Amino acid sequence: MKVKSQRIVISSARKFINIGALTRLWNLVKNFHAADIASLMNHLILRERLILFNIIYEKDKDKSAEVSSELDPEDAVQIVEALPIEQIVVLMQMMPSDDVAPIIELLPEELKDSVLTLMEQKPTEDVMELLHYGEETAGRIMSPNFYALNEKTNVSDAITAMQLEGDVESAFYLYVVNDQHQLKGVVSLRQFLFALPNTPIKNIMTTDVISVHTETDQEEVARNVADYNLVAIPVIDTENTLVGVVTVDDIIDVIEQETTEDIYKMVSLDTSDRIQDSPLTSIKKRLPFLLLSLLTASVSPWVVSHFRGSIQQAVTLAVFMPLVAALGGIAGNQTIAIIVRELAIGQIEWISARKALSKEILVGIGNGIVIGTILGGISYLLIRNPYLGLVLGLAVIINLFVAALVGTIIPLFLKLIKLDPALGSVSLLTMCTDSMGFAVFLGLGTLFLQHLA
Amino acid sequence: MKVKSQRIVISSARKFINIGALTRLWNLVKNFHAADIASLMNHLILRERLILFNIIYEKDKDKSAEVSSELDPEDAVQIVEALPIEQIVVLMQMMPSDDVAPIIELLPEELKDSVLTLMEQKPTEDVMELLHYGEETAGRIMSPNFYALNEKTNVSDAITAMQLEGDVESAFYLYVVNDQHQLKGVVSLRQFLFALPNTPIKNIMTTDVISVHTETDQEEVARNVADYNLVAIPVIDTENTLVGVVTVDDIIDVIEQETTEDIYKMVSLDTSDRIQDSPLTSIKKRLPFLLLSLLTASVSPWVVSHFRGSIQQAVTLAVFMPLVAALGGIAGNQTIAIIVRELAIGQIEWISARKALSKEILVGIGNGIVIGTILGGISYLLIRNPYLGLVLGLAVIINLFVAALVGTIIPLFLKLIKLDPALGSVSLLTMCTDSMGFAVFLGLGTLFLQHLA
Repeated sequence: MKVKSQRIVISSARKFINIGALTRLWNLVKNFHAADIASLMNHLILRERLILFNIIYEKDKDKSAEVSSELDPEDAVQIVEALPIEQIVVLMQMMPSDDVAPIIELLPEELKDSVLTLMEQKPTEDVMELLHYGEETAGRIMSPNFYALNEKTNVSDAITAMQLEGDVESAFYLYVVNDQHQLKGVVSLRQFLFALPNTPIKNIMTTDVISVHTETDQEEVARNVADYNLVAIPVIDTENTLVGVVTVDDIIDVIEQETTEDIYKMVSLDTSDRIQDSPLTSIKKRLPFLLLSLLTASVSPWVVSHFRGSIQQAVTLAVFMPLVAALGGIAGNQTIAIIVRELAIGQIEWISARKALSKEILVGIGNGIVIGTILGGISYLLIRNPYLGLVLGLAVIINLFVAALVGTIIPLFLKLIKLDPALGSVSLLTMCTDSMGFAVFLGLGTLFLQHLA
Repeated sequence: MKVKSQRIVISSARKFINIGALTRLWNLVKNFHAADIASLMNHLILRERLILFNIIYEKDKDKSAEVSSELDPEDAVQIVEALPIEQIVVLMQMMPSDDVAPIIELLPEELKDSVLTLMEQKPTEDVMELLHYGEETAGRIMSPNFYALNEKTNVSDAITAMQLEGDVESAFYLYVVNDQHQLKGVVSLRQFLFALPNTPIKNIMTTDVISVHTETDQEEVARNVADYNLVAIPVIDTENTLVGVVTVDDIIDVIEQETTEDIYKMVSLDTSDRIQDSPLTSIKKRLPFLLLSLLTASVSPWVVSHFRGSIQQAVTLAVFMPLVAALGGIAGNQTIAIIVRELAIGQIEWISARKALSKEILVGIGNGIVIGTILGGISYLLIRNPYLGLVLGLAVIINLFVAALVGTIIPLFLKLIKLDPALGSVSLLTMCTDSMGFAVFLGLGTLFLQHLA
């Protein structure tokens, strides 16, 4: 939907909800794609969402299940919680297991148990099984409802079997297994179309299948799909048994989620912080990080306080010290952004960590020499004090070196200790570039104090 | 490939190249996926890349074309330029047009013309046509080699036609057109498998096709594919004629490219800056931005210089001024990250720009009051000067308000004037939060000067 029509849709939906014109509300949304209804809901408050969801459920249960699949699990669970339990069960049974699992998991314990008990045997098992895998793994995001062919069948039997099976969810590839359900190969629907009916599947399948394990991190799953240009990837367990399939639409969600996480963690934001959250919710989410930043930011006053005497004698030091710190922060942020991003897209393996470090340090020193010289030169021309120019220039060179060093080490170290490389890296960096910037500039300034005062 | 094996592969490849053991080099890589060979090349220097590429070309031309498709156009063009022109032409003719276009475009003008002249008619036309669309549009990234069915044919004729056509690139959906080649519907290969042979395509096709225009921005194309969970999207021109198809693997590339751009532009990095670039290359790429940052960063010394007198009387002001600025910077970065990201994933339309602003301002003031009160309280307890506590607390509240205001307005304004919302936003923000932080804190400090000295 375009911005303009979207604006009209939101205000119309609001109006219809408020005047209770539910048929007109349904007529407004009935031809929308489920994804568009989900976006619309993002712009409504909970009470409005419930009214909209209920009318969709009443008119078209399938569509309401599709909408629930499209919503973020955090948003879906708010709606689901408000429904009568029978309705929850109906809805969950219509949704694919991989969309149900994250919602079920967020439900209050008691409600969760009742829903799982009331759901029919088959889907419950699927959902329970998915919940059993670690968070952010292939097992969690895979769909257990895939259709696998036995390598011994032939093309025409396989087609008949598939026709009986009915709707096989987005089967772009058909995976081939042996009698022990171990993954042996893959056949595309195109290969099917062009094969003779009595050809054994074994003869047309490709045996070189790229697969992932149930415990493979979702980010690595995404890398595989992206690097090998796949639209789906099979998931196997430790016995090589095919247990599920991850499709590219889930991969796109993973990539977007992981990217948001990278950016948010860099600036110390909770990954669930959203623009549509209420101010109070966002304040609660950001305060803990700001309180931590208060600690890291308090290092620089402590550093500066050691140079009270020098500043009193040469106030010029206080005037120029923010400049040295700011340039370090800006250069350091560049380094952090590169390292975090290259780690995310898998460019930096451990082989090149040392190389990355030495490269960034050379860049830091190189840029430092250029910027330091220019800054020193300009300040000399403006203020006519060669010592101030010298101190400023040297301090910038040293601080850009520190920025490069710290900017590379922070994300690499966080990764080494199995934390997210982006985690709070900008606050940590600011702490280092600020305090080192002040220490170096004021330290050098103190050395040349009689020439600056 | 796993990190460990990758390390061995790189060092083996290097060794084989340096001792001229080209057969062993070929044996090493011949079973690799083209994407893995491309990653391997990223870790080699140009001379090594050329040797590796030449042996692949010699042994398996198709594979060398696949590798060229997997490389970034910037890297591919370096290799291509070094090849004899006949070899370039062979290579370009084997590659899909949508991968050829960006490489051709980067070639020196003369070479480009000769290659286009030497290429056979058909592929040249495709490539020329792609080059004719605006940068970063659907037209640029689409593949013009798709297979469309006429709505009047029936299933069995269509299958025969497709079998004659041979390899139809990743045809997950088959698009249906009328006699004027206008897009009328879509049929999945699965619908084909399950339809009776004499059913007209018209009867099994879905008419509700989501499509984009040739001039649609690639980011919007990506949003459509992501939101509607597609694996391909058709591209039409102004007459509704089907002219190409964008597949999900290209979409993943777009999403990763746009995300890298967002992060890099936020911290004022050239989007082509890579960890494997030489230090000199990176210095050249970063210097212009650092020089600009030198200008923005020079605002704060100018601000501070107005308060020389106050600082001389109360050095405490110089000690605490970095804290106020740093907290503003951290909070402002949070706001910028949220706004840039929500703009990127399409959450903020213009309807909610004002809402976003008022929300962030409330969050800024709220957090400011909490952090300001805590900071004021602690500093009072430590230093026993109620006025310092008051000045610090007030300055933090005001600066967090400024940070929220500026952090929201910068990206929204950049978007309004059709620039990238992330462009240099962190430098601009630092300029504002630093200089406002100093101005407010030193200004308030000057008011209460007799109590602080």
